[in-house]
Amino acid sequence: MQNPELSQRRERVLALLKEERIHAFLVTALPNVRYLSGFTGSNAALLLTPDRALLFTDPRYQAQAPRESDCEVKIATGPLLQEVGKWMKRLRLGTLGFEANRIRFAEHQQLRELDGLRLKGISELVERVRMIKSPEEIAAIKSSVELNAAALAEALRHFQQSMTEVELAAEIEYRMRRLGADGPAFETIVASGERTALPHARPANRPIEANQLLLVDMGATVAGYASDMTRTYAAGKLSTKWKRRYRAVLESQLAAIDAVRPGVSCAAVDRAARAVLRGYGMEKLFIHSTGHGLGLEIHERPRIGRKEATKLELGMTITIEPGIYQEGEGGIRIEDTVCVTSNGCTVLTPTPKELIVL
Amino acid sequence: MQNPELSQRRERVLALLKEERIHAFLVTALPNVRYLSGFTGSNAALLLTPDRALLFTDPRYQAQAPRESDCEVKIATGPLLQEVGKWMKRLRLGTLGFEANRIRFAEHQQLRELDGLRLKGISELVERVRMIKSPEEIAAIKSSVELNAAALAEALRHFQQSMTEVELAAEIEYRMRRLGADGPAFETIVASGERTALPHARPANRPIEANQLLLVDMGATVAGYASDMTRTYAAGKLSTKWKRRYRAVLESQLAAIDAVRPGVSCAAVDRAARAVLRGYGMEKLFIHSTGHGLGLEIHERPRIGRKEATKLELGMTITIEPGIYQEGEGGIRIEDTVCVTSNGCTVLTPTPKELIVL
Repeated sequence: MQNPELSQRRERVLALLKEERIHAFLVTALPNVRYLSGFTGSNAALLLTPDRALLFTDPRYQAQAPRESDCEVKIATGPLLQEVGKWMKRLRLGTLGFEANRIRFAEHQQLRELDGLRLKGISELVERVRMIKSPEEIAAIKSSVELNAAALAEALRHFQQSMTEVELAAEIEYRMRRLGADGPAFETIVASGERTALPHARPANRPIEANQLLLVDMGATVAGYASDMTRTYAAGKLSTKWKRRYRAVLESQLAAIDAVRPGVSCAAVDRAARAVLRGYGMEKLFIHSTGHGLGLEIHERPRIGRKEATKLELGMTITIEPGIYQEGEGGIRIEDTVCVTSNGCTVLTPTPKELIVL
Repeated sequence: MQNPELSQRRERVLALLKEERIHAFLVTALPNVRYLSGFTGSNAALLLTPDRALLFTDPRYQAQAPRESDCEVKIATGPLLQEVGKWMKRLRLGTLGFEANRIRFAEHQQLRELDGLRLKGISELVERVRMIKSPEEIAAIKSSVELNAAALAEALRHFQQSMTEVELAAEIEYRMRRLGADGPAFETIVASGERTALPHARPANRPIEANQLLLVDMGATVAGYASDMTRTYAAGKLSTKWKRRYRAVLESQLAAIDAVRPGVSCAAVDRAARAVLRGYGMEKLFIHSTGHGLGLEIHERPRIGRKEATKLELGMTITIEPGIYQEGEGGIRIEDTVCVTSNGCTVLTPTPKELIVL
């Protein structure tokens, strides 16, 4: 029984394949397999042809796969790609498109060893389709973002000055789970004091001390969809210098959000964030890009960076997260998830952004 | 300043490279980069030559990388592989070995485009070195296994008959974190009733009902090292049939553990598990392999499967986890982590294995 959303996605991919004159396409990246087949297992490949969609997996998933997917499930007892090869022969498909940006070199070698098969590498085809979210997907991302925000709010109600970074991270992830998340979408970042200067700090087993910065970067996976949010707090009093810095980052974030609308390039959004920080003399402290798409994966196209010419389109869902970092001192980042609408964007993250003293 | 454990690991890799007549080796798989450099970031590549070890990462990690790693840190503002190419030229290294089993096809294409570089694919070189754990690594895995067991014990003290699968999973992961884990090593499996027949079930938002099976498969990451354990419980009374099945799986697991010692092939350990289940007429219900190595990754070499000829060696650390699954009814799996010793193995998992009624 066909799932209309899934078959629509496959139709979009098939239309692009037709342009490339490819009649069979092998999807090996798991998030792409999930997007096109509904299957959530950890070992799978999808063979798409104009009239069939064959989902290959192993015996561990023989019960689960047909429940989740509307594709024809083929259980392989050996390597999946060998089984794919057999079907290519059986269906007399001569040329096989493969995911050049995703497949491993060794898998490609395996495909090359299959008899009578011509191979054609195609990059980011499914990823390009996935950039534009359907209403169902936007609803799923919104649920994930809202659950994530609720988990942070609950965890902060349990915040105490003596808590360690690890304890706060544990509290956050526990709340996520209880609220129905599959789990964190990435390693939760809880950093305090000068450790906030590390954009990807792991929570440490040390107390969050008074009168310091506290940075929380967290995301949940909910029904497969990721959320991503960063807030920076004052765990007590902050110096005037750091209050000014907070204001600068917040202005930068608001300016970038303001720049988001269909037809604007990702680079222009990145520039809007950077211009504000330049005005404050803080541009050099902003050492990463302004944001990224998110969906079934936590980092998706487009990248909201200096060099990304991609133009925003209706239905894209991206993060906006400028930050500044000064080694040995500290850092500030503020991150929301926004969805591009016909005349701008909707900020999905409901969490307040003014500087909060815990 | 050299870290003796890390430089010893690099020496072992360099010795193998010498056999392959390769003078420069590019490590792109992150767990391999971490193993050889100590760096834990999410974007990195390591270039090994007989007298230098260059660690490439991006500006987000400019503070963290030199703290974690004893290698020369090179911060790339563009793509890492481009920067690697520049250094290959500067160091006049003609042939570059690469991780054929790990590198992506597209990354390989990027390398091919670098001027004057000869490429040589090598498979699983670092992975082979990683199979044998050092005493420090065994201690790290033991800590992870013990923390994991403690988290399960604490979570079960909070078990109530009305709890949902999701709530129990949340409790388990919360305890892990509080005890000091970086997080779960994989998606925690909590399945009850007939859902235990799915070897990779996700926790569902439904109550764990009385007189059913309850299967928990969980692992923590602690200081980078994974643990992995499965226990199946009776949430109330079980039928005689299922009690017999539990006995069969436990006997199968004990037989496999008994077969573990240096010089024995992985296939022989797998056969030992299967032979017991065959005696009970349950061989067909055992639909996966008996176990796998674990360490910095949750699934490492060797695979304890039917066709794996690799012989066990002192210091290998593997899981032993036979299971049986009957669709629509239920499943049982019992899994420990064991470490190969000179005359057998040590079971690292301290959790009891007799059938426990919750």
